[in-house]
Amino acid sequence: MSDFMALALEEARNAAQRGEVPVGAVVVLDGQVIGQAGNRTLELKDPTAHAEILAVRMACEAIGNDRLSGCDLYVTLEPCTMCAGALSFARIRRLYYGADDAKGGAVENGVRFFGDPACHHAPDVYSGMAGREASSLLKAFFAARRQ
Amino acid sequence: MSDFMALALEEARNAAQRGEVPVGAVVVLDGQVIGQAGNRTLELKDPTAHAEILAVRMACEAIGNDRLSGCDLYVTLEPCTMCAGALSFARIRRLYYGADDAKGGAVENGVRFFGDPACHHAPDVYSGMAGREASSLLKAFFAARRQ
Repeated sequence: MSDFMALALEEARNAAQRGEVPVGAVVVLDGQVIGQAGNRTLELKDPTAHAEILAVRMACEAIGNDRLSGCDLYVTLEPCTMCAGALSFARIRRLYYGADDAKGGAVENGVRFFGDPACHHAPDVYSGMAGREASSLLKAFFAARRQ
Repeated sequence: MSDFMALALEEARNAAQRGEVPVGAVVVLDGQVIGQAGNRTLELKDPTAHAEILAVRMACEAIGNDRLSGCDLYVTLEPCTMCAGALSFARIRRLYYGADDAKGGAVENGVRFFGDPACHHAPDVYSGMAGREASSLLKAFFAARRQ
């Protein structure tokens, strides 16, 4: 597993400890981490505070640009429709994601946004990296919530 | 035209004056405006800073909740894929939008997210309100940029 996906998993674990759905994301430029975040929708009371959105915003602030051309994003779960749209606007170069999300994903599930004519920039997509670990985290989190 | 759409248009005009793509949005709860914003992607160097996202975040902060159940959103342009996803997560009750966006819209164009099985909450949608004014603003803005 890449160090960057390991860091995304650490962000996901930290999110779980805060009671948030365990998803983590990392933005990398030229081998350097310029954004990293876990999901904080409950803490921030912000439905847009998914890991990907927070990591992208942090990275944009770091480089002082609303476009992350040449940047790659590692995320533990397949991005949802909102986040897929955001990654396209941010001009993310490569997207690496862990677990599939059959119910809420928008890359290889759902609206498959990057293949839609309304998508004007699509990253190269690499899926399945650390998918088992990412998926286990999510399963354990939701199993605990049902108890 | 409703007062709320008039306010959204004012936010769009203000965005244009800041050099931003002129789109404005307003969130209403029980007849009161609890969030309003224009597009600020350039100013904030944040590709997620669309009018809808900023208005939703402001409204969530106002009521201290990451869900805007019972709230309506007025926006001058058909929401994009990212924003359609955000409005779904925010549990917006009714969406009123002005101009259609054949290239980037995700409600009646593009991925038509609210009709997709991956969409777990869809607002009632009312389109075309003040569409001509909203569309004129956008056309004037892009015509001026091409000069």
